[in-house]
Amino acid sequence: MTAQTDDIPTPTGEAAPPGQAATKAALRRFHPEVVRAQILAVLDAWGMPEDLAAVSADVMVDTDLAGIDSHGISMLPSYQGLVDEGRMDIAARPLVVHETATTALLDAQDGLGHPTTAEAMALAVAKARTAGMGAVAVHRSHHFGAAGYYARIAADAGMVGLVTTTTRARAVVPTRGSTPLLGTNPIAFAAPTTDPERPFLLDMSTSSVAVNKVKVYDFLDKPLPAGWVLDGQGLPVTDPHAAHARLRAQEEGGLTPLGGTEALSSHKGYGLGVMVQILAGALSGALFAPEKGRPGPDDIGHFCLAIDPAAFGGAETFRPAVSEIVDTLHVHPSTSPDRPVLVAGDPERLARAERSEHGIPISDALLDLLAGICTAAGADFLLEGA
Amino acid sequence: MTAQTDDIPTPTGEAAPPGQAATKAALRRFHPEVVRAQILAVLDAWGMPEDLAAVSADVMVDTDLAGIDSHGISMLPSYQGLVDEGRMDIAARPLVVHETATTALLDAQDGLGHPTTAEAMALAVAKARTAGMGAVAVHRSHHFGAAGYYARIAADAGMVGLVTTTTRARAVVPTRGSTPLLGTNPIAFAAPTTDPERPFLLDMSTSSVAVNKVKVYDFLDKPLPAGWVLDGQGLPVTDPHAAHARLRAQEEGGLTPLGGTEALSSHKGYGLGVMVQILAGALSGALFAPEKGRPGPDDIGHFCLAIDPAAFGGAETFRPAVSEIVDTLHVHPSTSPDRPVLVAGDPERLARAERSEHGIPISDALLDLLAGICTAAGADFLLEGA
Repeated sequence: MTAQTDDIPTPTGEAAPPGQAATKAALRRFHPEVVRAQILAVLDAWGMPEDLAAVSADVMVDTDLAGIDSHGISMLPSYQGLVDEGRMDIAARPLVVHETATTALLDAQDGLGHPTTAEAMALAVAKARTAGMGAVAVHRSHHFGAAGYYARIAADAGMVGLVTTTTRARAVVPTRGSTPLLGTNPIAFAAPTTDPERPFLLDMSTSSVAVNKVKVYDFLDKPLPAGWVLDGQGLPVTDPHAAHARLRAQEEGGLTPLGGTEALSSHKGYGLGVMVQILAGALSGALFAPEKGRPGPDDIGHFCLAIDPAAFGGAETFRPAVSEIVDTLHVHPSTSPDRPVLVAGDPERLARAERSEHGIPISDALLDLLAGICTAAGADFLLEGA
Repeated sequence: MTAQTDDIPTPTGEAAPPGQAATKAALRRFHPEVVRAQILAVLDAWGMPEDLAAVSADVMVDTDLAGIDSHGISMLPSYQGLVDEGRMDIAARPLVVHETATTALLDAQDGLGHPTTAEAMALAVAKARTAGMGAVAVHRSHHFGAAGYYARIAADAGMVGLVTTTTRARAVVPTRGSTPLLGTNPIAFAAPTTDPERPFLLDMSTSSVAVNKVKVYDFLDKPLPAGWVLDGQGLPVTDPHAAHARLRAQEEGGLTPLGGTEALSSHKGYGLGVMVQILAGALSGALFAPEKGRPGPDDIGHFCLAIDPAAFGGAETFRPAVSEIVDTLHVHPSTSPDRPVLVAGDPERLARAERSEHGIPISDALLDLLAGICTAAGADFLLEGA
């Protein structure tokens, strides 16, 4: 896990549940099919229709396989909270409320984000297949896991995919600001190469780091680099416990936008965060700053764009051109032979290979939480002893 | 100028000519119409067709008005070099080489980027008007000035605009790399608000700072913040003269991707730079890493995307939704009352108001260069005494 949390670009930025931080302490490994069955059992017990649950479980397991532990099965406790509070309608089926040959707007009807967004990107890809480009916006949704999963749907279809989403918490302080306002508003971008197993796949929050990374440092009692978290005066907070408490409070200070400090151009990460808010929020009609004193559904917005290179005359040339870029980067001289230059998508692919063989690691703390969820929901607990 | 270089987000990232760095020393102000006439006189003397020259001059003057001194009239010496070396065909007229109802590919035929890209975005907007979305890629182009100009064309038409471009120089070191490979690969994004004069307008290089910013610090003998420029071992270079020399050499070290350091997630800025390379380069079929030992035309690629909010049911709701975001940010609490939270587009709008009234400042050093260009080209020099 050290390698994962230190080296893998942390996609999106939602906080993982408490169990996640404890993954350093104890880990057991589970076959991906078992993890998938466990997720399905829970979603089924909550009352999610079978087809929607199947898609949701696929997304979550793939996310765990990719090493993005903060966004897979570890999110179930958070989703349970939304279900219990009546904020999420787990049985909701997305509805197309506006559609053209190139675009659509889906209403997720307060359901879980995963099945709606998978449908949204599939629809965008289908439109791009006939029209050259397709884009689908979603409103009234909830957390959808890792944005990269949906961008990759486009790349797997030979297209460029761009995905953005608003997020639930006020976590990021605008440059010069003293209180948090924006979410970690992630961007995912994927493009196919000549190797179907190796698309370019960028999945990043527009903050310097995700909330979950601060949580892990809190757990490890490890000082934060200056530039991750600021206080209400704009000064760096490096004590991991104080920083994490500050992020939970969402009152003064918070995560920095990518760039970290004004001197290192945090206004750019801040600008990108607003760009995401406009694409995924304003364009879809989703709520801005969702948690501001609102007890109801999150009303999160997503945006999925697919572009067919063939529409630019690149049916034969696009994949080789992307491969040229990626291959050039892979052999680019690095400052240290044991730390080669990586390309977005590499860490996730390496994790997928390792976990497909050895299983998905889950901490004892998370297993306890999952056992409790199963008991409460009346679902079988499938993760005992591994 | 101090305010400009310190506070205005530096869009894109090409180096401005030597005259630019000297703007601290001596500045005279010129009426925008005089600056426009001067640019037109030079482009005309070089043999650019009248309609293309008119567009190019409009773009450059608007860029100077917006305070982006590195990308307006100050670029003429650089363009002269390309013309003199036979690398740029100033008379070239863009050609549509592939077209669908939503997309097009333009061949700039080795001409200046400005008129081709203005045409590309106008075409994207026209397609979006009928099809919901439009995107136009360009190859065989050259420098096009500031990306934000073209994104704003979409916003002025009530649409979302996204513009990216490859750049000429190898300037940016990939995370973990020891030598520069990527350009400063900018992203511009614009969206309309309820006030036509105040669109959201983000224009940023995907590096921490632009080459030109290092050049200004070199001129001022001012140490660089650690994290702008790295040496071949990945260590910060803070001596401004050494840093600038390193950027000119394009051999070891270079600009950092946005994020600055690995700890502050420079892999995200690096990933965004590759995203730009894919959208503007691979999709258009433009050259990757243009300057690598190639004496010919730059073969720069651009990408322009326009999205009509009406295609998502947002004809009436989109502008107010963007305004809500922007207005909320404008009144967001800041760490210091004299340094309010800004929104992308604010600094340029403030500069435009000031310069529209007081004129565009041009340094004596740049005036000398421009006088030389006029003499060589046989154009009238219109910037004497102001």
